[in-house]
Amino acid sequence: MQNAILNHIQKFIHLEPSEIDILESCFSTSQIKRKAHVLEEGQICNTMYFVIKGCMRQYIINPRGTEQTLQFGVENWWITDYLSYHNHTPSHFYIQAVETTEVIALEKPVLESVLVQIPNLEKYFRIVAQKAFGAAQMRIKFLFTMSAEERYHHFNNQQPDFVQRVPQYMLASYLDFSAEFMSKIRGGKV
Amino acid sequence: MQNAILNHIQKFIHLEPSEIDILESCFSTSQIKRKAHVLEEGQICNTMYFVIKGCMRQYIINPRGTEQTLQFGVENWWITDYLSYHNHTPSHFYIQAVETTEVIALEKPVLESVLVQIPNLEKYFRIVAQKAFGAAQMRIKFLFTMSAEERYHHFNNQQPDFVQRVPQYMLASYLDFSAEFMSKIRGGKV
Repeated sequence: MQNAILNHIQKFIHLEPSEIDILESCFSTSQIKRKAHVLEEGQICNTMYFVIKGCMRQYIINPRGTEQTLQFGVENWWITDYLSYHNHTPSHFYIQAVETTEVIALEKPVLESVLVQIPNLEKYFRIVAQKAFGAAQMRIKFLFTMSAEERYHHFNNQQPDFVQRVPQYMLASYLDFSAEFMSKIRGGKV
Repeated sequence: MQNAILNHIQKFIHLEPSEIDILESCFSTSQIKRKAHVLEEGQICNTMYFVIKGCMRQYIINPRGTEQTLQFGVENWWITDYLSYHNHTPSHFYIQAVETTEVIALEKPVLESVLVQIPNLEKYFRIVAQKAFGAAQMRIKFLFTMSAEERYHHFNNQQPDFVQRVPQYMLASYLDFSAEFMSKIRGGKV
């Protein structure tokens, strides 16, 4: 199961056999039960999560008391609150398992130690973060420029399996439209 | 003027004198005239810009034909389109100088070469990207949870000088409310 993360890392950088040994000794998988939280608003985030199998999400509770999903993390994605992680400040977010999810949870002291032992890994995390930032910019663009219907079809075209996989209300809040509108779309009424 | 970027880098990592020499030989400043573009939609983005003095912005043209600012980059910020940069795909964005702006423009081959010569610089760019991603997540949270009035006051509290510095229509589109609403706020009518 550690193969998933080793394969992902090796898409971006070369690892020596000795470095793979170090990583295998540091990476351990853990299981987050469906609906369990690994981070709640107000807590300090000290861990980065790599999803091996399953689905996590980052959400907020909006002023109307409704959960609003900001990000999903499926296989081969990292999920964390980077601002809380770096600034050691209370998080504004919740991170929860949508399904029972197998993750590699890298705590800050472990990750810092691994980065010292394998400096080349900085490049991997640099590219992952830059691409995630680029994706967040695209997400802001879509929120500003597409109608709810366009966002749904765009997302469904890009991630057809995923649309079937997560609860409708989570997807509706991620795409910023009501569950009622989502039901209409699925019923072919829009 | 290169001091600005060297100081910024050294907030995050230690540089040896020999590494500073390399950076000084690679970093050259250039001036982008007010309203000039360094990236237009459809072009491939091959450059990262560090703002020494001035202000850049990243924007889109929305379906109504209106410019919508997604990000500002002021002193000590990097601005680029990371997805286009990494995937070598046409950009969805424009990047333009709001004021006449002094930047360090790092082209991909130069940056790649510098990263090979100074591997420790990977850490700097990793942290910068992770913090930028964290800030983008906060921005999405604010768009979802704050009213236009709350977003304005929040932004004005955090960046009072900046609010006076940029054209109202750019700030209004960044905070996602109409220029009319912006005028009301400034006139104390809201």
